[in-house]
Amino acid sequence: MQTSQAETPSPADKKSKAKRPIIDCDIHQISGLEEIKPYLPRHYREMVEAYGPAYPGGMHFNGGVGGRMADAYPEEGGRAGSDLALMQRQHLDRYNVAYGILTGEGYGMQATINYDYAAATCSAINDYTIEHWLSRDSRLRGSVMIPKQEPRLAAKEIDRVGGRADMVQVIVCNGATLPYGNRYYDPIYEACVRHNLPFTIHVGLEGEGINSPPTGAGYVTNYIETRCARPSTMAAHLASFIFEGTFERFPTLRVVLQEAGVLWLAPLLWKMDQEWKGLRVQTPWVRKRPSEYFREHVRVTTQPIDETPNRALFDALLDSIHADETLMYCSDYPHWDYDSPKQALPRLADALADRVYYDNAAELYGLPTREKEAKG
Amino acid sequence: MQTSQAETPSPADKKSKAKRPIIDCDIHQISGLEEIKPYLPRHYREMVEAYGPAYPGGMHFNGGVGGRMADAYPEEGGRAGSDLALMQRQHLDRYNVAYGILTGEGYGMQATINYDYAAATCSAINDYTIEHWLSRDSRLRGSVMIPKQEPRLAAKEIDRVGGRADMVQVIVCNGATLPYGNRYYDPIYEACVRHNLPFTIHVGLEGEGINSPPTGAGYVTNYIETRCARPSTMAAHLASFIFEGTFERFPTLRVVLQEAGVLWLAPLLWKMDQEWKGLRVQTPWVRKRPSEYFREHVRVTTQPIDETPNRALFDALLDSIHADETLMYCSDYPHWDYDSPKQALPRLADALADRVYYDNAAELYGLPTREKEAKG
Repeated sequence: MQTSQAETPSPADKKSKAKRPIIDCDIHQISGLEEIKPYLPRHYREMVEAYGPAYPGGMHFNGGVGGRMADAYPEEGGRAGSDLALMQRQHLDRYNVAYGILTGEGYGMQATINYDYAAATCSAINDYTIEHWLSRDSRLRGSVMIPKQEPRLAAKEIDRVGGRADMVQVIVCNGATLPYGNRYYDPIYEACVRHNLPFTIHVGLEGEGINSPPTGAGYVTNYIETRCARPSTMAAHLASFIFEGTFERFPTLRVVLQEAGVLWLAPLLWKMDQEWKGLRVQTPWVRKRPSEYFREHVRVTTQPIDETPNRALFDALLDSIHADETLMYCSDYPHWDYDSPKQALPRLADALADRVYYDNAAELYGLPTREKEAKG
Repeated sequence: MQTSQAETPSPADKKSKAKRPIIDCDIHQISGLEEIKPYLPRHYREMVEAYGPAYPGGMHFNGGVGGRMADAYPEEGGRAGSDLALMQRQHLDRYNVAYGILTGEGYGMQATINYDYAAATCSAINDYTIEHWLSRDSRLRGSVMIPKQEPRLAAKEIDRVGGRADMVQVIVCNGATLPYGNRYYDPIYEACVRHNLPFTIHVGLEGEGINSPPTGAGYVTNYIETRCARPSTMAAHLASFIFEGTFERFPTLRVVLQEAGVLWLAPLLWKMDQEWKGLRVQTPWVRKRPSEYFREHVRVTTQPIDETPNRALFDALLDSIHADETLMYCSDYPHWDYDSPKQALPRLADALADRVYYDNAAELYGLPTREKEAKG
């Protein structure tokens, strides 16, 4: 209990204190990262300095400098990704980026049980993005951040800002309490379809807050395990969309899988097709081979692209996922494992490069064609 | 509350009852599957008849006939897998199986919080297996079932029966509360190494009982989603063994991955090697490339083998996982998706077939060489 101000002891109090000594069993001294850093072993001090505090704000250390490219921090100070001019110089202008889809950061509100605060935070992010970014560079497009854990509030937010021409997709984190194909989320897809917006799943927040533990085997110990598990959670969402019949219920819905890699999709598509042969009687609403739903409804972004033992295998697996229709370039700027267009992929044949670096995204997001853009 | 016997109403009671009518708000009528079946829609009646009750005893429908091959049920009645003579006729004799590793079934005790009952059940299974199976056919070898959720009790069970020559591995289900590389399980690996027993992870019990939800996105709706998610949970265990440094702490430990497919391992190994390059400073105890630990410490069984769009891709991916050293044939008899040695794989080159169908397992389990066995 608290009193509103410190009491001045009276002589009588003094006497009574002396008579009745007190033991208090719960007094909080501060013991934050700054205080305890000198007491940590050196390698953890170094990791905290390099990667940030790990927690709170996340469960694991990240990579790079606080999870960002070292050179993405503005020279005059401030956080990476906070300075439009630097982003233009370092990325948009430098690499002739005709359009850039902003995906924001810090999806933590998508993992809180406080639905209303989550919704308010999403609205604030969307308003800030419109005012501070979309209005200042005509190449930029926005993603509607939604409180995905409460689908009706999420649909309201999509209706609120999703009709704008400069908002081109809805975005959620990979971590979830239920896979995204679950009918629980249907109000979100009704709104996506209403506004013709793709639904984009971006890695992050796996196992945090109210989201399910990050793997089918529970919580993992190291950041690298989280990274290796992200394709698995993405795979659960994809299987859910297909086997729950979400694409049958919403025939125009498009889904984007972001930042969980690419090549793991090939064995998953084979497995889904194979299992479907033996078990399709249990899900009669799934009317096509799972890989056909993928090809028609799902798009995948490049970063971080997988490395293979040889180029032939890389090409064969890209072919297996119909990369010419499904793969879209992305940089992940300004995060530490940023891929410039020059580093993102091994050299592709011109026709495939056109699809991956421009056409697939232009078609999905309704942007001008490459030909029109080149003419300027 | 209960009284030990029904009370005979006295005239006084009768009067008081009439005065004070009673409402009881919780009386349980029986409403089991047999009672409600006529009230279920026809397709669910058919599914229950084909696949079994789905729950209790599991969360999902299975395949085949109650999860088993239709022709594995003994003609004289009884359950599939219950009749040694039928197993011999149908599988062991027919396909010249020199050694068969029994893996049991019903790993449900590995998902209960009642540690002591779990341990007692495991002991009972092991004793039954020794008495009823291993002693009756010299080709058979057993797996030590353990209460994996309480590692010290598990180690006791390994010490109790794991020294026997006819017990050749320790076995656990894929579903878990923590990934198996977590140091929490170290007492189990100390016991495995003490008795030179591989640690085998067999699919099952994902998301059931105290095990973590079956995907990083929570619970899935359909059985086929569970099957598609099993590689993911297996992947989490594998990453955990490698990045927790379990193989550094237990240099002679061998791990077997069972019934989650095979080819998904290739992209995972590439990803682990790739991520390790950028993040190895965070796990300095991981001294080799992750794929090297896999090759040295991990073995994988064939069933259910993945199908690829073409043979070249199949061979390239087998090559990527060093199948000549890591892949071992298994049938999954008498489960519904059983693979006889003739169906298990596309035709392999003789040298590779020798490794996959015999040598890799003989070396792992310390069985006589193929040459010795052929001389007989």
